[in-house]
Amino acid sequence: MRDALVAAAFRLFLERGYEQTTVDDIVALAGVGRRSFFRYFPSKEDVVFPDHERCLADMTAYLAASDDAHEPVRRVCDAARLVLRMYAENPSFSVQRYRLTKKVPGLRAYELSVVWRYERALAEYLRARFAGRADGNLRADVIASAVVAAHNNALRSWLRSDGQGDASATVDHALGYVQSAFAAAPAAAAARESAVGAEGPGSPEDVVVVVARRGAPLWRVVQEIETALARD
Amino acid sequence: MRDALVAAAFRLFLERGYEQTTVDDIVALAGVGRRSFFRYFPSKEDVVFPDHERCLADMTAYLAASDDAHEPVRRVCDAARLVLRMYAENPSFSVQRYRLTKKVPGLRAYELSVVWRYERALAEYLRARFAGRADGNLRADVIASAVVAAHNNALRSWLRSDGQGDASATVDHALGYVQSAFAAAPAAAAARESAVGAEGPGSPEDVVVVVARRGAPLWRVVQEIETALARD
Repeated sequence: MRDALVAAAFRLFLERGYEQTTVDDIVALAGVGRRSFFRYFPSKEDVVFPDHERCLADMTAYLAASDDAHEPVRRVCDAARLVLRMYAENPSFSVQRYRLTKKVPGLRAYELSVVWRYERALAEYLRARFAGRADGNLRADVIASAVVAAHNNALRSWLRSDGQGDASATVDHALGYVQSAFAAAPAAAAARESAVGAEGPGSPEDVVVVVARRGAPLWRVVQEIETALARD
Repeated sequence: MRDALVAAAFRLFLERGYEQTTVDDIVALAGVGRRSFFRYFPSKEDVVFPDHERCLADMTAYLAASDDAHEPVRRVCDAARLVLRMYAENPSFSVQRYRLTKKVPGLRAYELSVVWRYERALAEYLRARFAGRADGNLRADVIASAVVAAHNNALRSWLRSDGQGDASATVDHALGYVQSAFAAAPAAAAARESAVGAEGPGSPEDVVVVVARRGAPLWRVVQEIETALARD
């Protein structure tokens, strides 16, 4: 019945416009009562984004199932991919909704509040992982926000292409940029420490030398540093 | 009259609560008519954030007055400081509003939409600066979002401290983190090219060697790379 309500709602939104469609119109087309609608959806906005609550719950559970072995920036990137997967499950529905949301200010506001909740879920996880470190909360907030921005940049470019092309590859590329910008020094340090093994952790005087082409973009230089540190 | 309306509105919001206060209550206390209210404020939400439109206009003008000599990431950080300045101009009002906004979901939604507009202003500037470069739009969106997140992290910590302490120093520190994460390779390259002068730009085979303490955090390594490139 939930799916039937979503289908009826979208048929009407596309035919008449979102503002011109009432909940009564939707339940009449779906052949159910008003109470059934509100059992599934608190408001008309919610029928436009029927899967975000489930996706937010999945993301929270995914992050809660992390352990200290997960590199935190990579982990939030993987968590963000859950959102992409939800959109990619049903490309034509996602593209329709994207077009609708662009036209209706109320839906854009709703979407901003959903995006904010995803971002907070990622930030809370990172805050816990960075707890006790200098600028832990600041880093957590900035990285969560950068991950969401990269994910949404890629998601929107896929939606604008009418859901053609490889959404996963686009998102992977975008998230790769964020991962290189916030390359995880602590994780690299941990990798180093396990690499030196019985010799004990390196002294602060130890050096890493990175040689890079002068024309290389900085993010690539950072990536090389990470690789060097991990190999060290 | 505008200031009188804001003062009357906040007095009532604090006494009765935001939801319990009507525009009629506000104009009655301020001793003006309803039309005067709506001449200044499109809605009740707008009286809570009376200075954002001016600040957005200032930010847009500030960014429009940039030239190519401005390092783009630094420039958007400086643009974000305009928002801080607006809050810091009137600490007690800003703290009152922060407490009010936390309690009223409608105001939080409004605030999200304002934050989104600041973020888009920064992103549009960066998109233009990065135009034609690989991943220009992606980088622009991610950096704009990171700048806003850092600014807001610092702003909120200042507001939570009841507007005590040095707001500028807190925001400078937060924005410094973003600047180091997104150290601007293209600007550094431009600096290099002007430094080599008559010898022409460096060939792609030229190398930069970075030597860093192994225990140094990655952002500090990046900062050193930037300095090295600028000095080169």
